[in-house]
Amino acid sequence: MLVVQKFGGTSVGNVERIKHVAALIAKSRQAGDAVVVVVSAMSGETDRLLKLAHELAPFPDEREMDMLLSTGERVTIALLAMALRAMGLDARSYTGRQVGIMTDSTHTRARIERITAERIKEALDQGIIPVVAGFQGINENNDVTTLGRGGSDLTAVALAAALHAEQCLIYTDVEGIFTADPNIVPSARKLEKVSYEEMLELASLGAKVLQSRSVEFAAKYEVPVIVKSTFKKGEGTLVTKEDRDMEQVMVSGVTGDRNQAKITFIGVPDHPGIASRIFGPIGSANILVDMIIQNVGQGDLTDLSFTIPRGDLHKAVDLANRIAKDIGARSVELKDKIAKVSLVGVGMRSHSGVAARMFETLAAKGINIMMISTSEIKISCVIEEQHLEPAIQALHQAFELG
Amino acid sequence: MLVVQKFGGTSVGNVERIKHVAALIAKSRQAGDAVVVVVSAMSGETDRLLKLAHELAPFPDEREMDMLLSTGERVTIALLAMALRAMGLDARSYTGRQVGIMTDSTHTRARIERITAERIKEALDQGIIPVVAGFQGINENNDVTTLGRGGSDLTAVALAAALHAEQCLIYTDVEGIFTADPNIVPSARKLEKVSYEEMLELASLGAKVLQSRSVEFAAKYEVPVIVKSTFKKGEGTLVTKEDRDMEQVMVSGVTGDRNQAKITFIGVPDHPGIASRIFGPIGSANILVDMIIQNVGQGDLTDLSFTIPRGDLHKAVDLANRIAKDIGARSVELKDKIAKVSLVGVGMRSHSGVAARMFETLAAKGINIMMISTSEIKISCVIEEQHLEPAIQALHQAFELG
Repeated sequence: MLVVQKFGGTSVGNVERIKHVAALIAKSRQAGDAVVVVVSAMSGETDRLLKLAHELAPFPDEREMDMLLSTGERVTIALLAMALRAMGLDARSYTGRQVGIMTDSTHTRARIERITAERIKEALDQGIIPVVAGFQGINENNDVTTLGRGGSDLTAVALAAALHAEQCLIYTDVEGIFTADPNIVPSARKLEKVSYEEMLELASLGAKVLQSRSVEFAAKYEVPVIVKSTFKKGEGTLVTKEDRDMEQVMVSGVTGDRNQAKITFIGVPDHPGIASRIFGPIGSANILVDMIIQNVGQGDLTDLSFTIPRGDLHKAVDLANRIAKDIGARSVELKDKIAKVSLVGVGMRSHSGVAARMFETLAAKGINIMMISTSEIKISCVIEEQHLEPAIQALHQAFELG
Repeated sequence: MLVVQKFGGTSVGNVERIKHVAALIAKSRQAGDAVVVVVSAMSGETDRLLKLAHELAPFPDEREMDMLLSTGERVTIALLAMALRAMGLDARSYTGRQVGIMTDSTHTRARIERITAERIKEALDQGIIPVVAGFQGINENNDVTTLGRGGSDLTAVALAAALHAEQCLIYTDVEGIFTADPNIVPSARKLEKVSYEEMLELASLGAKVLQSRSVEFAAKYEVPVIVKSTFKKGEGTLVTKEDRDMEQVMVSGVTGDRNQAKITFIGVPDHPGIASRIFGPIGSANILVDMIIQNVGQGDLTDLSFTIPRGDLHKAVDLANRIAKDIGARSVELKDKIAKVSLVGVGMRSHSGVAARMFETLAAKGINIMMISTSEIKISCVIEEQHLEPAIQALHQAFELG
């Protein structure tokens, strides 16, 4: 069986951990599997490099940033290949370029366009264990690009798809995907399997186990992904196509996301075209808007609220004031101490009443809901940040997820 | 004027120093020069990576070692390019591969075979300052190679040759080439200029300012090299073709080298073919033999001594014992506390009596000479290591170098 195994930064964070990872890989080989390894930079390394960059330039050039950050994974592949070779295994390191991971030219968040993987196929044919630098590729100018935060997951999944691997194992510092964050809900239960769609909602909702784009990629090419712990034994969680088992369950998990801020335009003249004059400039500034709510207008005026990532709030302040002036809004309100709590589950398609029970549960705890958004398999509520943990705990219990 | 400027590890050792280097480059630009920059890894970085490697593998694979160590220069090029851009200069970083530095496949000490420098020429045409990673290239398999210790000097000189640059400036932590090590001889004088040949002898004799192969390369392509300080103002030392001025001076400098060890075979049967049975296996073990002395035989037996780099002594012990057994030598003596003191100067070609005065000077200080070797422009004596500093001081004074 051909498997791709990806190890994150904490899994290769020091010499002892790299040796442990090498032992895990050796075990897979002994079990008869062909293994392709993908690794991240050693934990702490990216932050060290970022710090140096920001000490030299307030806004470091993005091409140079990719040149800088891509070194982190290169260090890890060389060290892990050395460790494997010291164990008598024939391993060899490959950079994104050597694997033929071709991307567009959007430095610091490039998109993979194609993967040739010629050298990986050759290596596998020769019984070599390829150790691949995650997170990076090259563009058509032969410049190094990086795939954005969590990009090593994407490398692993994309490589698994390109090589038609049977499995893509994402080794990380958690045991799998849980019904809720075990730090908040001690009775949270590890899920045996979860659908790509659910995982996508969970990933985008702040469960930082798998990068969203890697889940999209896995879904597109139907790569079975297993999330499991580098340090503890256990089966982990299988991320796969939706099946009947999954539909039996009304709600698979509850997640929280503190990376939220809210902007409200108060007293906005309520006529057509207003929305585009607000969200046009916001979009141009590369600020990702999540939820939008427009209150029912009283007379000619209306209030309009939307949420953005909290880190963009600072960038958005000036812009929002300019927009308010432009559209003739009375004032702008900014709020950063908010959070989003969400229920996710493919079972919602066939079970009604999830939303009602969610609102009741929050109301019973005296938690005020500021905004609501829903999709086929998800319901999210924006609440005060201070209420996030009690909300998650109450919902976990109400939907009997433990 | 097109100049190549190379900055070593201590010159880019931290954020402040990188900023200082950026300011030096900016000054050259303001003076109207086109500049190509070559940098080493930040001081300490290579040692950090080597330590990690040796913790994972007693004998790390050399291809992986190159993958690992080549990241050091990549970090520096990205940071320096960022710093230059933050100053409003259009700078861009290039790896050895992007510069087209093609080498053979001798990992960890590859030889440059050719340099295309296409992207550097393009960058220069566009007024961009290229910042190039020293020390590295790629082989025909597209694998990263490194050029060995001091390889960034070679990158700079080779690039200067390929681009037909007017000058190659080697910025370092000393002010130039001195008549002797100023730490040992406080009255040592900085040389205004020195010939390639002298520099080659100085470099190979342990004056660690310029890597030997870079001097050979500079001589071959007649690249004027200037060695100067990153931190202090001053003209530095010009390394150039031999001229009449240089011949006027009998001796240009005196150097010492502690990286010496001696092996003596005692009671060797004195018949033809013995030397090859000794030096064949030594050469095969990649141990570089420097001086060789064979005593006048007494009867059928002779003693044979030779020097090797001290770091190879450990590797040579077993080998020497095996050779002694093979050739029927009575015993083997190993000695590591020796050093080599040398006088260098193209003037020796036209001045006689240098050797005699050297021996007299050492004798007057009671310093015993164990071995002697000479070339056209150099005389070296092997002495006890404890005598090295007094020998250098005495010779510096005797030849009026101060």
